[in-house]
Amino acid sequence: MPDVMGALGRLVLGRPTREFAPRAKPRPLRIRYALPLLAPDALSSVAYAPDEILLTLAAAGLVGVSLSPWVGLAIAAVMAVVIASYRQTIREYPDGGGDYAVAKENLGLAAGGLVGGAAMVDSLLTVAVSVSCGAQYLAAVIPPIEDHTKAVAIGLVAVIMLASLRGLKALDNTVILAVYAFIAALGLTALAGGVEFLTGSLGAAPAEGLELVPSSGFTTGLTALGGAFLALRAFSSGAVALAGVQTISTGVQAFRDPKARNATRSLAFLGLACAGLLIGTLLLADQVGAVFVADPSSQLRYADGRPVPADFHQDPIWAQIAETVFAAAPPVYVIVIALVGLLLILAASSAFRWVPALMSMLAQDEFLPKQFFRRSDRRVAAHGTVTLGIGSAALIWLMGASVTRLIQLYIVGVFLSFTISQLGMLRHWNVQLPLAKTALERRRMVFSRAVNAVGLALTTVALAIVVVTKFTHGAWISLGLVGLAFWMMVSIRRHYRRVDSELKLPRGSRADLGLPSRVHGIVLVSAMNRATARALAYARATRPASLEALTVAVDSARVWELRRAWDRANVPVTLRVLDSPRREITRPLIDHITALRRRSPRDMVVLYIPEKVVRHWWERWLHNRSAARLTSRLRHLPGVVVATVPWQLDQPGDTGGPEPTSGGAK
Amino acid sequence: MPDVMGALGRLVLGRPTREFAPRAKPRPLRIRYALPLLAPDALSSVAYAPDEILLTLAAAGLVGVSLSPWVGLAIAAVMAVVIASYRQTIREYPDGGGDYAVAKENLGLAAGGLVGGAAMVDSLLTVAVSVSCGAQYLAAVIPPIEDHTKAVAIGLVAVIMLASLRGLKALDNTVILAVYAFIAALGLTALAGGVEFLTGSLGAAPAEGLELVPSSGFTTGLTALGGAFLALRAFSSGAVALAGVQTISTGVQAFRDPKARNATRSLAFLGLACAGLLIGTLLLADQVGAVFVADPSSQLRYADGRPVPADFHQDPIWAQIAETVFAAAPPVYVIVIALVGLLLILAASSAFRWVPALMSMLAQDEFLPKQFFRRSDRRVAAHGTVTLGIGSAALIWLMGASVTRLIQLYIVGVFLSFTISQLGMLRHWNVQLPLAKTALERRRMVFSRAVNAVGLALTTVALAIVVVTKFTHGAWISLGLVGLAFWMMVSIRRHYRRVDSELKLPRGSRADLGLPSRVHGIVLVSAMNRATARALAYARATRPASLEALTVAVDSARVWELRRAWDRANVPVTLRVLDSPRREITRPLIDHITALRRRSPRDMVVLYIPEKVVRHWWERWLHNRSAARLTSRLRHLPGVVVATVPWQLDQPGDTGGPEPTSGGAK
Repeated sequence: MPDVMGALGRLVLGRPTREFAPRAKPRPLRIRYALPLLAPDALSSVAYAPDEILLTLAAAGLVGVSLSPWVGLAIAAVMAVVIASYRQTIREYPDGGGDYAVAKENLGLAAGGLVGGAAMVDSLLTVAVSVSCGAQYLAAVIPPIEDHTKAVAIGLVAVIMLASLRGLKALDNTVILAVYAFIAALGLTALAGGVEFLTGSLGAAPAEGLELVPSSGFTTGLTALGGAFLALRAFSSGAVALAGVQTISTGVQAFRDPKARNATRSLAFLGLACAGLLIGTLLLADQVGAVFVADPSSQLRYADGRPVPADFHQDPIWAQIAETVFAAAPPVYVIVIALVGLLLILAASSAFRWVPALMSMLAQDEFLPKQFFRRSDRRVAAHGTVTLGIGSAALIWLMGASVTRLIQLYIVGVFLSFTISQLGMLRHWNVQLPLAKTALERRRMVFSRAVNAVGLALTTVALAIVVVTKFTHGAWISLGLVGLAFWMMVSIRRHYRRVDSELKLPRGSRADLGLPSRVHGIVLVSAMNRATARALAYARATRPASLEALTVAVDSARVWELRRAWDRANVPVTLRVLDSPRREITRPLIDHITALRRRSPRDMVVLYIPEKVVRHWWERWLHNRSAARLTSRLRHLPGVVVATVPWQLDQPGDTGGPEPTSGGAK
Repeated sequence: MPDVMGALGRLVLGRPTREFAPRAKPRPLRIRYALPLLAPDALSSVAYAPDEILLTLAAAGLVGVSLSPWVGLAIAAVMAVVIASYRQTIREYPDGGGDYAVAKENLGLAAGGLVGGAAMVDSLLTVAVSVSCGAQYLAAVIPPIEDHTKAVAIGLVAVIMLASLRGLKALDNTVILAVYAFIAALGLTALAGGVEFLTGSLGAAPAEGLELVPSSGFTTGLTALGGAFLALRAFSSGAVALAGVQTISTGVQAFRDPKARNATRSLAFLGLACAGLLIGTLLLADQVGAVFVADPSSQLRYADGRPVPADFHQDPIWAQIAETVFAAAPPVYVIVIALVGLLLILAASSAFRWVPALMSMLAQDEFLPKQFFRRSDRRVAAHGTVTLGIGSAALIWLMGASVTRLIQLYIVGVFLSFTISQLGMLRHWNVQLPLAKTALERRRMVFSRAVNAVGLALTTVALAIVVVTKFTHGAWISLGLVGLAFWMMVSIRRHYRRVDSELKLPRGSRADLGLPSRVHGIVLVSAMNRATARALAYARATRPASLEALTVAVDSARVWELRRAWDRANVPVTLRVLDSPRREITRPLIDHITALRRRSPRDMVVLYIPEKVVRHWWERWLHNRSAARLTSRLRHLPGVVVATVPWQLDQPGDTGGPEPTSGGAK
């Protein structure tokens, strides 16, 4: 069957002859360019983390919501530790590779595989979460799409996927600009909000007039235990703000020398920006009275006690804040929201950017099919891109484009990687410590180890909280997906290992033993034409010990015609006709060759097949079908080599090559 | 990309190694077996023709319906002529081939192509019409499916298609039994009806109490012109009863010797049966007052003037007749209807049976891809079967499983073939006449020519009527489909012709000219293992003028390892490493080989590629991807032969073949 998928691929990607091949090592960049290229992932997660914190706390009504800045502080504290430990990762693994390299080198390949699986699942969720959230911001400025965020989100994934198939390199400058514009816009909003707050002119969010109805468990206020549990849940949801900080440790090679130093600096800056944005957002939200709940119709009511209508639409927190701060200047509001939305979409596209790198890394360790190693090969990379696109669209569809539900899945993978990576670093220091040469070096290592130990403790606790509090909310789905990815990767690696050991040359064996004693050539013939003549000429040029031409008698008239043409052309090779009462082609040939092999098992059979090479993909339906079938069957016969002799049909210019005819006329 | 479709195919069809291969020439059968096997098509069309006649005439109310026996007689007359002329076709073309052979041999290949295209479209419509009608009969005995005939019909197509993929040979005995049971059941019904009529005990159909409302054009009765036009339309709809009589002329080879004589006899018998059934049905329908209209809610009302409800359901005519005749014995009614339904479904399956034969015939004349010629090849035949299944299901879906609408499409193709075939026979006699040796022979030929001339006149008129009266009712769709099929077939043939003429050996050229001067062997290496060693051994066994091993440096660590292993194994072939700054594999190789070819254009290059042959289809994703890619690119380089040296992985037992290692240990 012709390669239908290949034809489809060509439609999207263009002809296979063009390869888009970024050099294996891209040119290193200054911090000011490299950082924004690596930042969207981390920054975007700060855009949706506040919503999740407020949403969780809103279950306990206003009392709960007032806890939000404290939850924000706790997350910022964890972030500080995590960033400190990633700075160490960068210094110790300046070649990049991030969590995967740390896990693999310190905890073994299996741990690496687990991190790799988690990273693959995270890439799906990065896209799903970012795009779903982006669709929400879009809906905040374009109300008509409010009820269609699912379709909009899936449409956005499709657009990003197609853009990635064509290559994302061209987007670099857009990304850099968008990141700076995003930071400027959010900084400006925070600044303006702060000034308004100080001057007392800060207005109230549109939701200010609404009252929060505490959920059933919290109607009598906040008990110590209930409150603690609620705060933990809010913390675990908000911890999603940490997602993406590891990106820089993977992309150290993007920085100019001194790479490690530039990367650690960038990471520190990124951490500060994220933490600042998170706390600033929560404070402003508190001041303007922004409200974000899981289920507006049951959790919100008007001041007069009426419940809000069933189709009540709530904007994301940043939209509410910006709307309040820039109440006097709606265009500024629209621009700020558009920038947030753009950053979210670029964060999704950045996942499409690093997945090929991740897959290449995994393929190098045989966790994925080897071809993914060459990520510069566009058609190989396309498989990863399409899988990512379809997978994330499926997740969006299944979760109804609900950011809240998707985040439950997302955090598991994020913290799984964090935890394994911290454990790996701890092990790293334990191994390195005895090798320390000076007391200073030793003290530094002990300190570093302490950082990672604290990091490990914090991320383990966070992971435990996430899994425990969110297991039924969807954490089981991510755990299942990570498990599936891990199983697949381990199976692939096991297969490659088995094949390698099967193919291993016995020790001390010399390659010049076991030469076949003689070569028996066979030319497969269906008609006497130039393609056949070339195959005959080539077969004869290899001077086999014996050579015969074979044809299968499917149509007696054709065989007769072939015999006549054969005699006319004076071919110095015997034509043998195989009977085929059932009009099969493959079986008589296989039988004949098997018999040959049985007669002289030390000989080798080379079967020359003339192949017509067509120019259009649909023409492949019309040629070489029997040959393709035969080839695929013959591969299972040992001692048989299939040599295809191509004849290029319908080529502009000459067909070149040694011609079987003396005249040059075509 | 691995062959996903192939894997799917294996799921449905089983492993490709099994081939279901009926002998090219099946064992000839006695009339009593051969006739029923060829009859379902013709008989089934008689099952729905009366409905269409009555439906058309009902537009003029009861006056119109009373014309039905006359229309039936006219159709029977045409049928007599058509059958007489097909008897001649059988005698003149006893090898079978039917309309296609007649058209091709007398009117040229283009006419053959047109008949072939019409036959392909007819096969789709045979299935669509038969199955839709079968679903109606099913609904007559199982009322709950009344409103789901579309889904039922498409489901039936799917079942028949899957059964065909597994092979229909096993159904032969069922078909034979079903045909005889069908004839017996309908004969019994007619007999019982006749007896009841004569004894005055014949009841009234359930529809007897209903009044026919003439359509707007016929409220004032039947004018001469209006009546004539209506009768013509009824004739052209009822002419569908002729569909299928040509089947016997295609299947002459199924009969025992004397084939032609047995076939003509069978055809005469079949014609009598069809004509008898048609007229009998119309007479009985008239007597019991069976009514069948296009739109019950506007065309039917109760005796008291109330219109029938909107969801009024009408059974097909045969169901109404059987219900009336066997009013006293409902089980007999159910059996009769079940047999009619079964025959309709077997008629659909018979299309699945003869389409591979048709495609094989068309492929022999290069109207279809050559591989279809070998219809015994199950996987090739499967393409035709699946196309037929999907195409007919699409037609059923588009036409809402409406037999009436589908028939409009069907008749065009049927009469197009009839007309071209008659024209071909006329031409045949004109050519033969001068060659007549005796006066008797001459007279016979003149008579035969007259039969065909009358046949041509009648079928041309019928075709014209069909096209004119039904153009907007759907005839344009069939004409379009036939045109499309014709265009496709002609394009394929043109492509093959062009390739043939391009490949044609110049006259007088001797095949031993143009031998390449030297052979340059290249072994593609990615690692030093047994597969590579075998490829090296095989390449050396062919003793090329020069031999080198090539590897592409994608991963420097691997190259270093390869070099070491190479030295250790003492390979007597130089290993050349090609640089690849962009980690590509294909391009450096193509460049290298192109350079080689440019240096010595009279040489031939044989590239040996070690190929790992895996056992499971999914494992193909894991191996040989670069090689497959390279092979498909290299085919475009002239003077390069690609020889794949397979290594069978993971085989039970030994891998056989001349081993590159001396020890037998695996």
